Amino acid sequence: MNWESGFLELHHQGQVIPLMAEWLRQLSDAPDQIDHNSYQRFYDPTQLPNDLAIVEAQANDQGVEILFSDGHRHFYPLERMMIEAGLQTHPDDLPQPTPWTIDTLTPPILQWENRHDSWARHQVLDGFFKYGFALLRDTPSTEDSLLDIAQVFGPIRETNWGRLFNVRTEAVATDLAYTGLALTAHTDNPYRRSVPGIQFLHCLANDATGGESTIVDGLSICTALKQQSPAEYDVLSSLPISFRYLSKDVNDRETAPMIRLDSSGNLRQLRLSTRLDFAPAVDPETLKTFYAGRRHLARLAAEPRFVFSFKLKKGDCLMMDNHRTLHGRTAFAEDGFRFLQGCYIDHDGPESQYRTLSRHLRQTQTAQTVAA
Amino acid sequence: MNWESGFLELHHQGQVIPLMAEWLRQLSDAPDQIDHNSYQRFYDPTQLPNDLAIVEAQANDQGVEILFSDGHRHFYPLERMMIEAGLQTHPDDLPQPTPWTIDTLTPPILQWENRHDSWARHQVLDGFFKYGFALLRDTPSTEDSLLDIAQVFGPIRETNWGRLFNVRTEAVATDLAYTGLALTAHTDNPYRRSVPGIQFLHCLANDATGGESTIVDGLSICTALKQQSPAEYDVLSSLPISFRYLSKDVNDRETAPMIRLDSSGNLRQLRLSTRLDFAPAVDPETLKTFYAGRRHLARLAAEPRFVFSFKLKKGDCLMMDNHRTLHGRTAFAEDGFRFLQGCYIDHDGPESQYRTLSRHLRQTQTAQTVAA
Repeated sequence: MNWESGFLELHHQGQVIPLMAEWLRQLSDAPDQIDHNSYQRFYDPTQLPNDLAIVEAQANDQGVEILFSDGHRHFYPLERMMIEAGLQTHPDDLPQPTPWTIDTLTPPILQWENRHDSWARHQVLDGFFKYGFALLRDTPSTEDSLLDIAQVFGPIRETNWGRLFNVRTEAVATDLAYTGLALTAHTDNPYRRSVPGIQFLHCLANDATGGESTIVDGLSICTALKQQSPAEYDVLSSLPISFRYLSKDVNDRETAPMIRLDSSGNLRQLRLSTRLDFAPAVDPETLKTFYAGRRHLARLAAEPRFVFSFKLKKGDCLMMDNHRTLHGRTAFAEDGFRFLQGCYIDHDGPESQYRTLSRHLRQTQTAQTVAA
Repeated sequence: MNWESGFLELHHQGQVIPLMAEWLRQLSDAPDQIDHNSYQRFYDPTQLPNDLAIVEAQANDQGVEILFSDGHRHFYPLERMMIEAGLQTHPDDLPQPTPWTIDTLTPPILQWENRHDSWARHQVLDGFFKYGFALLRDTPSTEDSLLDIAQVFGPIRETNWGRLFNVRTEAVATDLAYTGLALTAHTDNPYRRSVPGIQFLHCLANDATGGESTIVDGLSICTALKQQSPAEYDVLSSLPISFRYLSKDVNDRETAPMIRLDSSGNLRQLRLSTRLDFAPAVDPETLKTFYAGRRHLARLAAEPRFVFSFKLKKGDCLMMDNHRTLHGRTAFAEDGFRFLQGCYIDHDGPESQYRTLSRHLRQTQTAQTVAA
């Protein structure tokens, strides 16, 4: 161990990760440094001395105790340093998203009566984060009960459509969803700032002929697009598109690339809704590639291997990541009643719940192991 | 005019903008092409012929009528083409954000009794979009009336803190906000996915000594940082930072650069809350620049020219863009009662309202001009 250079060196599988004094100091979770009710620092870290250094470091196989030049002393467990240095994932972290086709997909399902069982809830959320959607089965099928269902996972995200919206045919439809027309798979509300994170669709009646629900994994089709046409993928992930909703009382606009990537190039958010997107008048070469790419993506979204299709039955409730998953439906006839209700919540609700459940279940398991 | 190349050429101040057939075709807002209740296309544009071309174009000084190879014919007013080609702003568009110091700032204020006056509402929103905040004066000062106030602008964005939160000292504080400590200017909830867009702070009592509110323009300090230290600005606008909130029941995490830019390099979202941010263990050179940049930004946020400071009085309500504006307060004593309530809404509410009001006021003006 060497800290005279100002760094503590973490050796791992041939790699050497230099850890800065300032970085380590701000990770200290000693009870006088970080409020354990909120994990907020008690002090303002921008006020730490500029020349903060490691004065002393003593390692054992559990971790390392460090004395800093400002007098703070703290013990850092090895596992925590590995996690914070990005060499190991946190045991409570969300699972990685897994692209799927209908051949590899196991749809995550929660029987609603099991919703208060921590293992069952954790398992369905695990599937939700892996595959981008989940199906809640045998939920109450009375009107507006969706509010109670969705709030099990997080606070309702109200929009100008209200807390809930009804999906059934209307005389004067304010959205194509409120007709009997087929809807090609799309994401919802790409014109909204910010776009709702998670959509619920709750089936109260589905007696019309047709009206099958379709679900497509945006991660899968974006991955396929990237492989098949990197140039189109590049334009779709960079060209800012104007998404719009305009009526007498509402004028929503949002500008963003169709495929938004994070700084590591991973899919962060897909906005695909080709009836309300408007490209800017950039040079014809780029624009041509954009239109070809959008066509390509739409074609992929209709390829049978990518389309999970099934008919919702009364009491079924779909929960879909609206930043990743496309949803649509086949046309339906007027020969029976079809009535769905929808609403939104944000990502933080289920994400926080998953991490908290993970920790709880880990601790329960540890306690059981110790007791055994 | 030339369209044999497949483009219609728009000549403007020496520039020639080539407009593609496919681009023009999808802009057609003929009543059989776009649903005027929603501005959604009736057709799927990815199904348009690949080789769509302009067959005929006839211009006059009002615009151009185009016949496309799929048989569709539509008249495009010149102004609309200029706007869609990005050569002119839309008359209903939001004003550009204007960076301010306390010497250039005119705080946008709305007397609450005037809230239903379209001009007054439009004016305060105009100021809000320019400066990133507004002050609502003489609002009702009964507990929970904030919900009605905020809903004038858009639906409440509920979080795990509830629809409303109380800012007053608590015995066991779940956040430093709920103590009498000073709070350096910060943005709220950077750990939330997604971060609430607009924060309201409603003053019900402010009789304690101290407790002045502070507001800092994130756009101004980011602009200053960019000028003073481009290298720090680059790291702050690219290095993904982990923002966290952790308690017994909540485990929120979000990863994003502190300064998020759009594809044109304009500020899209600032997350500044140094008590709960955690940098990754990247190479020490980058990390050093990050810490220096964060210190620099914090120093700028405390420079008197950037800090608009005043004491809220009973019935005052602050409305702040939480993706741009920092807010804080000086410490306060226990010698009097201080009670604020807070809540969030999203950007789309006021943005849609502003555009709709703009159109309405334009049409009213036109009608008056015609009548005169």
